[in-house]
Amino acid sequence: MAHRLGIVGASGYGGAELLRLVAAHPALEAAVVAANAQVGTPVAALFPNLAGERVFDAIDVDRLAGLDAVVLATPHAVALDLGARLHDAGTPVVDLSAAFRLSADGFTTWYGDEHPRPDLAAGDDRHLDAVAYGLPEFHRDAIRAARLVANPGCYPTASLLALAPLAALVVPGTIVVDAKSGTSGAGRAAQDHLHFAHVHGDLAAYGAPTHRHTGEIERWLPGELGPVSFTPHLVPMSRGLLATCYATLADGVSAAAVQDALRAAYDAEPFVHVLPSGTFPHTKAVAGSNGCQLSAVTDERTGRVVVTAAIDNLGKGAAGQALQNVNLLLGLEETTGLTAIGVYP
Amino acid sequence: MAHRLGIVGASGYGGAELLRLVAAHPALEAAVVAANAQVGTPVAALFPNLAGERVFDAIDVDRLAGLDAVVLATPHAVALDLGARLHDAGTPVVDLSAAFRLSADGFTTWYGDEHPRPDLAAGDDRHLDAVAYGLPEFHRDAIRAARLVANPGCYPTASLLALAPLAALVVPGTIVVDAKSGTSGAGRAAQDHLHFAHVHGDLAAYGAPTHRHTGEIERWLPGELGPVSFTPHLVPMSRGLLATCYATLADGVSAAAVQDALRAAYDAEPFVHVLPSGTFPHTKAVAGSNGCQLSAVTDERTGRVVVTAAIDNLGKGAAGQALQNVNLLLGLEETTGLTAIGVYP
Amino acid sequence: MAHRLGIVGASGYGGAELLRLVAAHPALEAAVVAANAQVGTPVAALFPNLAGERVFDAIDVDRLAGLDAVVLATPHAVALDLGARLHDAGTPVVDLSAAFRLSADGFTTWYGDEHPRPDLAAGDDRHLDAVAYGLPEFHRDAIRAARLVANPGCYPTASLLALAPLAALVVPGTIVVDAKSGTSGAGRAAQDHLHFAHVHGDLAAYGAPTHRHTGEIERWLPGELGPVSFTPHLVPMSRGLLATCYATLADGVSAAAVQDALRAAYDAEPFVHVLPSGTFPHTKAVAGSNGCQLSAVTDERTGRVVVTAAIDNLGKGAAGQALQNVNLLLGLEETTGLTAIGVYP
Amino acid sequence: MAHRLGIVGASGYGGAELLRLVAAHPALEAAVVAANAQVGTPVAALFPNLAGERVFDAIDVDRLAGLDAVVLATPHAVALDLGARLHDAGTPVVDLSAAFRLSADGFTTWYGDEHPRPDLAAGDDRHLDAVAYGLPEFHRDAIRAARLVANPGCYPTASLLALAPLAALVVPGTIVVDAKSGTSGAGRAAQDHLHFAHVHGDLAAYGAPTHRHTGEIERWLPGELGPVSFTPHLVPMSRGLLATCYATLADGVSAAAVQDALRAAYDAEPFVHVLPSGTFPHTKAVAGSNGCQLSAVTDERTGRVVVTAAIDNLGKGAAGQALQNVNLLLGLEETTGLTAIGVYP
Repeated sequence: MAHRLGIVGASGYGGAELLRLVAAHPALEAAVVAANAQVGTPVAALFPNLAGERVFDAIDVDRLAGLDAVVLATPHAVALDLGARLHDAGTPVVDLSAAFRLSADGFTTWYGDEHPRPDLAAGDDRHLDAVAYGLPEFHRDAIRAARLVANPGCYPTASLLALAPLAALVVPGTIVVDAKSGTSGAGRAAQDHLHFAHVHGDLAAYGAPTHRHTGEIERWLPGELGPVSFTPHLVPMSRGLLATCYATLADGVSAAAVQDALRAAYDAEPFVHVLPSGTFPHTKAVAGSNGCQLSAVTDERTGRVVVTAAIDNLGKGAAGQALQNVNLLLGLEETTGLTAIGVYP
Repeated sequence: MAHRLGIVGASGYGGAELLRLVAAHPALEAAVVAANAQVGTPVAALFPNLAGERVFDAIDVDRLAGLDAVVLATPHAVALDLGARLHDAGTPVVDLSAAFRLSADGFTTWYGDEHPRPDLAAGDDRHLDAVAYGLPEFHRDAIRAARLVANPGCYPTASLLALAPLAALVVPGTIVVDAKSGTSGAGRAAQDHLHFAHVHGDLAAYGAPTHRHTGEIERWLPGELGPVSFTPHLVPMSRGLLATCYATLADGVSAAAVQDALRAAYDAEPFVHVLPSGTFPHTKAVAGSNGCQLSAVTDERTGRVVVTAAIDNLGKGAAGQALQNVNLLLGLEETTGLTAIGVYP
Repeated sequence: MAHRLGIVGASGYGGAELLRLVAAHPALEAAVVAANAQVGTPVAALFPNLAGERVFDAIDVDRLAGLDAVVLATPHAVALDLGARLHDAGTPVVDLSAAFRLSADGFTTWYGDEHPRPDLAAGDDRHLDAVAYGLPEFHRDAIRAARLVANPGCYPTASLLALAPLAALVVPGTIVVDAKSGTSGAGRAAQDHLHFAHVHGDLAAYGAPTHRHTGEIERWLPGELGPVSFTPHLVPMSRGLLATCYATLADGVSAAAVQDALRAAYDAEPFVHVLPSGTFPHTKAVAGSNGCQLSAVTDERTGRVVVTAAIDNLGKGAAGQALQNVNLLLGLEETTGLTAIGVYP
Repeated sequence: MAHRLGIVGASGYGGAELLRLVAAHPALEAAVVAANAQVGTPVAALFPNLAGERVFDAIDVDRLAGLDAVVLATPHAVALDLGARLHDAGTPVVDLSAAFRLSADGFTTWYGDEHPRPDLAAGDDRHLDAVAYGLPEFHRDAIRAARLVANPGCYPTASLLALAPLAALVVPGTIVVDAKSGTSGAGRAAQDHLHFAHVHGDLAAYGAPTHRHTGEIERWLPGELGPVSFTPHLVPMSRGLLATCYATLADGVSAAAVQDALRAAYDAEPFVHVLPSGTFPHTKAVAGSNGCQLSAVTDERTGRVVVTAAIDNLGKGAAGQALQNVNLLLGLEETTGLTAIGVYP
């Protein structure tokens, strides 16, 4: 019998991508599809790929608490409250927002508000028995043991997959992450800067140097690697995210050591594919999938390593990874429902 | 145990899409992946979504003849020979080219050459026991009974799905099909007019009024509906095809009769979704899937019906439909491996 | 000394394109740049190509009435009032909206409201001394003589340029116009269906069969050609509009007669370029310009002619044509400030 | 009377953009439009925006030598020969290739071949009386005095405009340039990786860390700033280039000092616009123009400055800048024919 999943905030892109993925998942059923601003609206009216009669449900905490798992795809202000209540009710939760990714202090630094439940802030090492940072490649056991999983942001997912294996090989304070994302990462709300006529044929940076994902990358990089320069860019594509990550290699670290570290980290991973050095990841290779492609080149002239990592921001960068975490929480095979290959060309 | 499938011409977009679909098909295995111009090249070198060590095989007819089914995704000149040889050897074949879609005479008219095997020309009614036109919604029984299936062209698929249910309701000689396709329909070969810098921000018609798909649409429209005006356009997107079809309604045909005819044709069909009149199909709603969305509006002022049908030209317009036909040929459930939903947004 | 031009509704795409064009016009100065919803906002904040300190002005009719000419780029409800007041004050006006394009009755039919100033409705032949339909290729003398010019809609511009020269050659009641436009034609307002993530990789029809431009095309086609089937589509590009126009040729009309008619109409026209039959117009060839490219093919099988016409919807389809009309109104050389070539690729 | 200009390599994008610009230049006439592989082909067959009967000429050095100036838009191997011969004949030359940008040694390091004319290698300080590096904002006097101008590469143009004003403020060895370009920068040749279906919805790095523009950036950065990490990316747009440049600020350099340095460099420059810190340049704001927009943010946490600079790779990155250099060589006003504003949206 299928596990009953609740999706809250299902009218956004992350929620809708989950609906698409759950429809192909053999052991999950979308029992509740909630979106407070769209109660009663047919799902197909917002997402024409999701045909059928289903309408959005209201958010009903009691009903959600009775499900086998709940994914929150809401703004972090909503998730702070809802995530805590569902956690307290004993319901397994994966939260796509930033509500529980940092420590309480980190949350205040980057998001401006006091954290209402410091005991559920994954970034605080003292609370890792209750809550896990949902990057399975580095926190798999913690996720399995937790009841509340803070799903990583799209930029941190790609950046951490690129850099975490090399943390011991690079010089603190030298990391630059230049990241590029398609527009679906900015959410569904109709905004002037997301108008097709403005984005088509355009490219720009935004939010640097204080984009909130900076703090998340710094928090979850292993070791003490210091502040990171992070610059996101908006690229004229719907899906896809590429992180180009620069760091100075520590003395004596060879090109081979870099490749060895990546292989050691990912050879057994089902979703992360290391390409040969000199072959560069393409976002379209993983479009619509939960995959990540990455590769590294080392530069003797500058002493730097350059790692690029490509994901689908709605896949491994959001809903795909959330489903991977749901699988872990429910004791299912981690890859269930996530084996689809990138849609190319 | 999985049926062993051969894919010939796998280095093109149709072949690669088949590889993507077969990877998710529970009862098929891609036993041979042939591409004569790319023998030994890793598949991943051409299609970065298809990771792994696999390389393209040479075309070996004997080896292909021993498989459970073969899909040909080659130019029609190659398919004429290969399809006939495999058919004669008793191997079930689905051919994506135009080799077997018309009658022998029709083939000569539209493709210029004499047909080497008139007995395998699906467009000749006398040979429908040997070969079927692979539009399952209208030729399902013939496909199940055949050993050679001529998979429809991308434009004819959308045009026929739009118009066939209305054939008895419209005036002969009044049909106009204005169709628009993404660039993957033009194939993988690097050509000047497919350069990104030329297609981006551009739109143009091409090939009218003698595009070869015109004859295929005319042949497979039910009844005697006369010549069709068909104008294809190249649209700046990778996948997606929309056919906007106009016809004058016969005297006394009501708007309700049009909707009834569409519902009668498609209510039981798993892949064709009729949208309410006034709601228009979007190609992106079916991107990456085997679905077709269509809807019709009637216009009392002009007496015309306008039907628009959206498909993924590589899905229902090529590889998806081919797999649907393979399922039918092999006695599998028709929807097996084809239930993926469109990737939106 | 430069003529002083007022632009009202300058915060929309049509108005901003006018600002771009006027900046390169040697005999015009943008004396007033009004946008009621953006008074005080820097122009550069909305249009980053228009650098500088200029801010949007308020709409002040007295001030506008003192200028040498005014272009209205507002919704038709605003233009109905403002256009009439400026006209009554004796100020030359070019109106980009639909306010004055039809007859009073036609306006009511297609726009739902009673026309407040039937004496200024260009579509009523009795009033052509006061107001002209601003398609210079067919109404040049009327424009020169008028004080109020109703600038054609983007779709009618392309459709009429394609079909008007052939009006005497085709069978009434057989015209189908299948048109495709980039998203800037839908205006600047942030709307869900114009979100980049929705339009990218997507294509759909909309508004058929009752899009308001249908009535405008019918009104301004010469002769009595009957109702027209008009279907617009939204295409994933920012600028560019293509009209694919079908009509049945009258008995005995030859392919040569069609080409002769086009050449007779346009050989002396500076902005309309007839391509050889079989060469198809590309929207990108005229991007950023006031040009129109068109070509016709005739089809003996169906008896139809197919004419495709490409324009920049913001150029010849809006601001470029408005400037052409301003030049005519002010007695300037018609091509002044409009000689820029399409930006390709 | 117009100066007679020769354009060699006019069938490529750089050459065609020059043709477009020269058509609007009041003091230049394209006297020769040469492209050896396309002699006799109508220009309009390759560039549909350039209507008319003109055909490509053959390359005839004697004829070119008699012109007032020649722009070379050929591969560097051709330019090495042709540029030297025209220079020796006393004809003013602007070369768009890399032939004369580096020192002879630098050329060998980055391009592999020995330089046939070290005395014409702009990168060698001893020869700056004969040849100039064509970045007018920093080498205006040298360009005016020279007879051979090495037009900068597209990536170096944006990178140097971003970084050169800050050269004295940053720590050597800390520069990272992460650059992104539209596909027209890769040239017109039909190549698999430039197929629309591959680029659409895709993003990838390429060529790092040894792209040849790295050496050009290093050579022309003022002072001794050491090796630079340079990573170019291919972005799904036709035109547009953005360079995101990172460097560690020297001790005690304030945010205000950074802004002051940019203003001091560019306040009097007609083509470079410094945006307020926190406002980010958009490539589309300068599309089709010779403009550059740039802005800088400083980051106290990391001690870095991040400068982004946006240009049209065919404008300020190629043909626009070439025309600016022609203006300087011929003693014309530098901005003549280059005042067009970016085409937005």
